[in-house]
This record gives sequence, C-alpha cells and structure tokens, in this order.
Amino acid sequence: MKADAGHTPPLYFVEPSMVLGNQIVLARETYRHALAQRLSPGERFRAVLGETQYDAVVQEVLSGKITASIVGRTRVAPPPCRIHLYAALLKHQSLDLVVEKATELGMTSFTPVVTRRTIPRLTGEKALAKIERWARVAKAAAQQSGRGSLPEIREIRTLEEVFDSGVAGVPLLAHEHEGLTVDIDSATGGQTEASIIVGPEGGLDALEVERALEKGFIPVSLGPYILKAETAGIAAVAVLMSRMAGCSTTHLSSHRL
Amino acid sequence: MKADAGHTPPLYFVEPSMVLGNQIVLARETYRHALAQRLSPGERFRAVLGETQYDAVVQEVLSGKITASIVGRTRVAPPPCRIHLYAALLKHQSLDLVVEKATELGMTSFTPVVTRRTIPRLTGEKALAKIERWARVAKAAAQQSGRGSLPEIREIRTLEEVFDSGVAGVPLLAHEHEGLTVDIDSATGGQTEASIIVGPEGGLDALEVERALEKGFIPVSLGPYILKAETAGIAAVAVLMSRMAGCSTTHLSSHRL
Repeated sequence: MKADAGHTPPLYFVEPSMVLGNQIVLARETYRHALAQRLSPGERFRAVLGETQYDAVVQEVLSGKITASIVGRTRVAPPPCRIHLYAALLKHQSLDLVVEKATELGMTSFTPVVTRRTIPRLTGEKALAKIERWARVAKAAAQQSGRGSLPEIREIRTLEEVFDSGVAGVPLLAHEHEGLTVDIDSATGGQTEASIIVGPEGGLDALEVERALEKGFIPVSLGPYILKAETAGIAAVAVLMSRMAGCSTTHLSSHRL
Repeated sequence: MKADAGHTPPLYFVEPSMVLGNQIVLARETYRHALAQRLSPGERFRAVLGETQYDAVVQEVLSGKITASIVGRTRVAPPPCRIHLYAALLKHQSLDLVVEKATELGMTSFTPVVTRRTIPRLTGEKALAKIERWARVAKAAAQQSGRGSLPEIREIRTLEEVFDSGVAGVPLLAHEHEGLTVDIDSATGGQTEASIIVGPEGGLDALEVERALEKGFIPVSLGPYILKAETAGIAAVAVLMSRMAGCSTTHLSSHRL
C-alpha cells in the first residue's frame, strides 16, 4: 500500500549459509519468493541475517538460486517499541490471518494460548506443524512489509503458564466490559513494550478474567462492538502500534557498519 | 471475543415485511443465521429495522421461519462517530475481508474506488454483483458484532469522482511517506466524522497523491511498515475508531420508545 513501494529495494531474511564472503546466494523458498517478485540482474535488494542488513545487487538468476554481490552492510536498529501478542488458539486457519496481519503491522512476538473456551487441542507433532506454519506466514509477511526483523513465534502455552511466567512490558488484556476498561494511553503511559492477551470466540471466562486482573493485567478496549477473535488480534496490534510511544517510528533506520 | 458475549441477546437486521403488529417473523437468510446460532423458543433477541430496535422473545421455530413476540421497542441512538472508508478495488476476494473486519470495527460507509493502479475493472452486472456481495458480508458482520446499524455499501467510484463530489468529515489519506504524514490526533482534532482513502497494492501514484493533497486530504500514517492494501483498510478503521473523538462509546445505548 506504500506509495512508490516499488522504489524501496525488496527485503529477504536469509540464513547464515546464504552469506558467502562478499556474495549472497538466495536459495529455496527465499529464491522462489524473489523470483515471484521478478528480482532480476542489476537490481538491488536487502538481506537481513540476525542484526545485520546487507545491501546487495543481483548478478545472476539461475534455476534454483540468485547470486548477488554485497555492496553495503548496516546494523538493523532495534525496534523502537515491542508488542507481544498472546492469542487464544482458534479453529481452522483463523490464526494464520492474525499472524500475517499482526506481522505486517509490527508485532514483536506471537504466543498461541490455550484457554478454557479454546476449542482446538494441539499437541505433539500437530502443534509443531502449526508453529512451523505460523513461522513461514510471519516470514513472508515480514518480508513483504519491509520490516527489519522477524517476529518470534513461540510455543503454545496455557493461560496459567502465561500468568505464572509473566510477560514483558505493560500487561494488557483485550476486554469488552464497558466501565471496566482503562484507556490505552493511561494503561501504557509512555512505555514502549506491552503484552496483550486476546481471548477465543466467546472470550475468556469470568474466572480467567479475574485471574488476569489479580495478576496485574490491565483491561483495555479495542472498540465498542463485539469483535471476532481474529479481528481482535489484528486490531490489538494495529491500535497499540498507533497509540504506544515510539511505535510509529520505522526501525529500518539503521547505521552503516 | 467479548467476554460473556453469550449473555447479550443476538441482533438481526430485519426487513419491513418481517414486522407484523406485535410479532416478528425471521425468514430467509435471517432465519438461517438465527438457526445457525441455535436461537430457540423462550430466548430473547434484538431485531433492528431502520432506527427502531425491537426486543423479542422466540415463540416458535418452524422449518423456514422463526416467530417471535415483540416485548419492547427502543430507538437506536445515532453512532457517536462516523468513519467512511474509500478503498481501492483489489483482486480476488480481498475486499470481502476488509468489509467484514471494518464492519465489525464500526465503519459507517464503504465506497470501492478505482485508481490508476487498480487492477480489477468492474462494470455493469459484475459490479452490481460485487456490491450485493459486500452488502451481505457487511450485514452478517454487523449482526455478529452487535452494532445497531448497517454500514452503507456505496457504488464504485473513480478517485476523481470522489475528489469532485467531496467527502464527509475530515478528509484523510492513508499514506506512508515518512515526514509527510500528520499525526492522526492533530489531523482529526476532536472531530467525530472522517473519510479515509486507502490505495491499492503499490499505492496511489504520485499524481493522485498530489491531487488528493490539493483537494485538502490530510496524509496520515497507519504504521511504520508497508501494509498490504487489505491490511491497510482494516487498520485504518481500527486505528480511527480507537483514536477519534466519541468512537469508543457504543451506540447500542438506545432509549425506550
């Protein structure tokens, strides 16, 4: 949606094996992604590996890989604000949409949560497959959004485990009971890191809400109406990115190494 | 996502033919929707017809219709804020998602817009079919979100037509050029009505942006990263609903007739 987005070189997250001296070799899914974007010889792109961003120029597009020469190195600046989303597991592919949109918007980490009204029960290999799927969705979304870092996709936790281990930054709970919620600006008060819990369809139950409040989670509203759980997850990140201190500054401003 | 949403009676938008004296008869798609929600005899629901909300109790569920007695009438309060979304046409079903999510969040009207980078060309019957489809999506989303009014789904317009006819409230343009955008709070300055243009993939072109600025549209940012057009449409409504004056008050507070 960025006007003239075509003028910003595309960005890819690469693996250590793809950086060879003064060359970068895009292979496998990164190659396919670059190919789909019609990256061609002579064009510039950005490649991020950990905290380093490489500026590169395509030399050769072969079947299966793209070879490029590194023309610059910068350190990726840390994100100016951090938003951690704790979203209840949802049926079908609903969380794919949340991961995709929340990543584009700037989410720092994503933790799927089991609550009392959560319907899907994911364990073992099924859980692992889901986590891997969300990581792929997040990577694709991060690349297309041009953000300089990947969101961390964490393991599935129960709500009690989240309460016990604690969360980073201001603890928030997406909640809809009028009269109970606190204004987001007051709740976050200039802080640049927050964690927000978003319940499943039907919401957290009364006992879970009570536990969250006991644990210091501050109830905030995402709007006056009843949102589907997936909409609430997306709106939570959109609204916090818009309202929290520092978030609106891009963290692509990096310094040359 | 609303905690205890189950305790709020479901809401349906009905047609004049469904209100008969002291009875309401849910038929056709409204019947199917109510059936899917397992509405059963003795249960309460809300039915909205224009500016009147009926409180009703189900008497009978027959094959094809649900008959209910009206037990109360209230006037639906006007929405405390109005957000009009002007979204560039997108490929495939992307705008369905925008209409659904923006309706849940509280959008007042939706106008699909043809811009220079717009790919789908919708005219005649195809355009009509799309508008009807978005109206159905909006109705379903409005019902499930419990909002007291339907968003207006308007006809497809070119961007020039939008500029020529003008828009309601503060004219905003979703824009990503750092340094050019104005803070949303300053742009809307306590107003309770705004119209926002969201461009297609690749954004508005430079000439269109220039025309928008000439016409008084204020460029605002929806966040630091490059958003897909569909994400931008959803984020625009989420962010404006969260930041504009009055928006966070529900307009379901109605007074008895």
